[in-house]
Amino acid sequence: MFDSFGYPGTQSSVFQCFAADCRYIKDLSRFWFCMPTLSIDAERLRDRFDTFNEIGATEDGGVNRPSLSAANKTARDTLVDWFRNAGLTVEVDEMGNIFGRRTGRDPDADAVLFGSHIDSQYNGGRYDGVVGVLGGLEVIETLNDRGIETDRPLEVVAWSNEEGVRFQPDMLGSGVYTGVFDLDYAYDREDKTGATFGEELDRIGYSGERPCEADDLHCYFELHVEQGPFLEDAGLSVGVVEGVFGFSWLDVTFEGQANHAGPTPMDMRHDAFVAVADVTRAVRGITATGGTDLVGTVGSVDVWPNAINVIPERVEFTIDFRSSDTDAIEAAVDRIRDEIEWAAKREGVDYTIEEIMRIEADPFDEGCIETVEAAATDAGCEYTRLVSGAGHDATYLNAIVPTSMIFVPSVDGISHRESEYTEWEDVALGTDVLYRTVKKAASKTS
Amino acid sequence: MFDSFGYPGTQSSVFQCFAADCRYIKDLSRFWFCMPTLSIDAERLRDRFDTFNEIGATEDGGVNRPSLSAANKTARDTLVDWFRNAGLTVEVDEMGNIFGRRTGRDPDADAVLFGSHIDSQYNGGRYDGVVGVLGGLEVIETLNDRGIETDRPLEVVAWSNEEGVRFQPDMLGSGVYTGVFDLDYAYDREDKTGATFGEELDRIGYSGERPCEADDLHCYFELHVEQGPFLEDAGLSVGVVEGVFGFSWLDVTFEGQANHAGPTPMDMRHDAFVAVADVTRAVRGITATGGTDLVGTVGSVDVWPNAINVIPERVEFTIDFRSSDTDAIEAAVDRIRDEIEWAAKREGVDYTIEEIMRIEADPFDEGCIETVEAAATDAGCEYTRLVSGAGHDATYLNAIVPTSMIFVPSVDGISHRESEYTEWEDVALGTDVLYRTVKKAASKTS
Repeated sequence: MFDSFGYPGTQSSVFQCFAADCRYIKDLSRFWFCMPTLSIDAERLRDRFDTFNEIGATEDGGVNRPSLSAANKTARDTLVDWFRNAGLTVEVDEMGNIFGRRTGRDPDADAVLFGSHIDSQYNGGRYDGVVGVLGGLEVIETLNDRGIETDRPLEVVAWSNEEGVRFQPDMLGSGVYTGVFDLDYAYDREDKTGATFGEELDRIGYSGERPCEADDLHCYFELHVEQGPFLEDAGLSVGVVEGVFGFSWLDVTFEGQANHAGPTPMDMRHDAFVAVADVTRAVRGITATGGTDLVGTVGSVDVWPNAINVIPERVEFTIDFRSSDTDAIEAAVDRIRDEIEWAAKREGVDYTIEEIMRIEADPFDEGCIETVEAAATDAGCEYTRLVSGAGHDATYLNAIVPTSMIFVPSVDGISHRESEYTEWEDVALGTDVLYRTVKKAASKTS
Repeated sequence: MFDSFGYPGTQSSVFQCFAADCRYIKDLSRFWFCMPTLSIDAERLRDRFDTFNEIGATEDGGVNRPSLSAANKTARDTLVDWFRNAGLTVEVDEMGNIFGRRTGRDPDADAVLFGSHIDSQYNGGRYDGVVGVLGGLEVIETLNDRGIETDRPLEVVAWSNEEGVRFQPDMLGSGVYTGVFDLDYAYDREDKTGATFGEELDRIGYSGERPCEADDLHCYFELHVEQGPFLEDAGLSVGVVEGVFGFSWLDVTFEGQANHAGPTPMDMRHDAFVAVADVTRAVRGITATGGTDLVGTVGSVDVWPNAINVIPERVEFTIDFRSSDTDAIEAAVDRIRDEIEWAAKREGVDYTIEEIMRIEADPFDEGCIETVEAAATDAGCEYTRLVSGAGHDATYLNAIVPTSMIFVPSVDGISHRESEYTEWEDVALGTDVLYRTVKKAASKTS
């Protein structure tokens, strides 16, 4: 029924149904007549999603499946079974990235790759990553149901260690795959107990034989929850992702003097934590004037000796600056370096600054973006273009192959928490857009 | 030789040798002729000090003997042996406080109690507490050497759990002894593993039968390192302690919202750590104007989830305000409560404040102070009166019995660290002052 209304072209950034007062939003009971016909099987997808999220389920409705944990292994085993049952040829590479391949009419054509990750934050949410991987599998099942053979081969992928909570840095699997990191570097990453990524990968049996490198790829797509508030605020179900914020991560240490909090007069103090307080306020100041979408966060703070009656001797903390504007990040980092120096001088403490990661803001491929837009239009859903504030495996893929992403809303913008939630209609619609995107991209004539 | 110069009376707060240009400071090679004759045996004391500090010794020159640890048990066993070898009658009370008693000419007279503690901070210093306990034992040995019988009985004491790093609150042994805490409350204190003080005391065999209560006491003295810079700055070897700073300890929690540090715009943030930064600056502001000796410290800070790319959801932190002026503490606590409320409003986060400890500033007994001053004069050393910024077991004892303390300098004001250091001449001189103090106090005619 919705189809009969017709749509504006893909140039408009927000699509609107032509029916009077009708915005296809999320209130399907009210606007049921605008419900687009889904190509995918939303119920099958949901059953799989719920079954999958029993693995490592937490009491408060989240999942705890950090990279290479027992729960992560079970999740991998389950996924491999499902891939095989869907007729995919499964390969695991040296980084434990899992690929499920469906051949095409032209088996030697460059493949369309799509997927996400199945590792989680510690006590994280059920949607982050999982939606993109199970959504990818649903794409395959839908093609199977319809007996559709694509021109190009398809590969669904689950990247290893996207979250980076157990082994730093994050996006390690896609990072090695795209040549950002060496394999040995990745294998040597240690968790807090000193266990290495390489050892743990062997232990859970996911150190595969396929070389971890990109080979004969046509393009990459990733369906993911937004992890921010824009789509929900705009009342939209789908975001067409134009690129990813660049970011800089700084590890900063102040080193002062631990003395008893009682008998040490204020003028003899060298309090490392007071310097951190100054820098934290400075981060706020810089984001206020540093650019329209510049954000800055002091997220991790460790204090020594961390006792009520001892002046903090050493504090290690992190600063995260992000923006779609590379120059804004550069300027923020320059300014915070000055602020750190001045905070240290004021307090009479030493400091070190290490930039542990810098990713340039990088727009996605315009062709891939337009493919997603066209698919969203076909699916009959409103969408907007947006830039992702969070990093994704797609960030690395974009450096070597045309890439775009599809976002679905995060309720209240919440992610990385057990309360992370996306309306099921949005997950289903996003997966439908992924299906249409993959089908278009896999055609050699489109 | 020094004796022949004579001294000014005990009314002057800093004693000066009459010889031209002679200040009896710490440079004994230069002012050797002013070296007072020590009554105690500094070499014996030093041998014992070094032997004792092999127990739980750390690589960096400190000791790690937290309350009721294996090293603390060994230290207790060693002390009990040494007490017995010095002819003391050893009793352990229900809190594991260790008493070594030497009877007096009048065995029923109220006793003179003196000592300190032998538990340490985690990787703490060698002097904190130990000086007062081994100094007390040296007092006994010196009396034994000289065949001196005092009028009053003497008791040397090592209090349990002074530091409060493993079991909070600190000064638990003297706290129960003086009726500040119930015995059951003390037994129920848990360390981070959930082990209780009572269980651990049983486990190491130091749950004694003597009731933990003060009985027939004449007065209490404690020799301790200053843990601050005043004596060293003044070039003095001994401080006569007039009282202890009062203090307030606040446990504060801010509770905001954990969201991804990338896609969450600044105007949607509820960052618990930014509120902590505001309060930390406010503590500094309050100490700048709140009183001449008011000090304030944010010492312990725990951040959740403490990840580089997640906005801090919850921060628990502590505030410690101290002063010799009870009104200044009261005013500081009132002001910081307002600041916490405003920081929470600004950031849109919830907060809780719990005052976990409030000790009023409390002057020591003037008679005891004068006894220590007279002893310092007899020992031929310069001294000053001062107020202790740090709490001590003497703080609790002062509430029930006339009390004073003797301080010796802490080099660079450092304590609670492995680098804690006191010149040995100062330890020896402080112990000599303790000896003379105890002898005076134990005389029924003086």
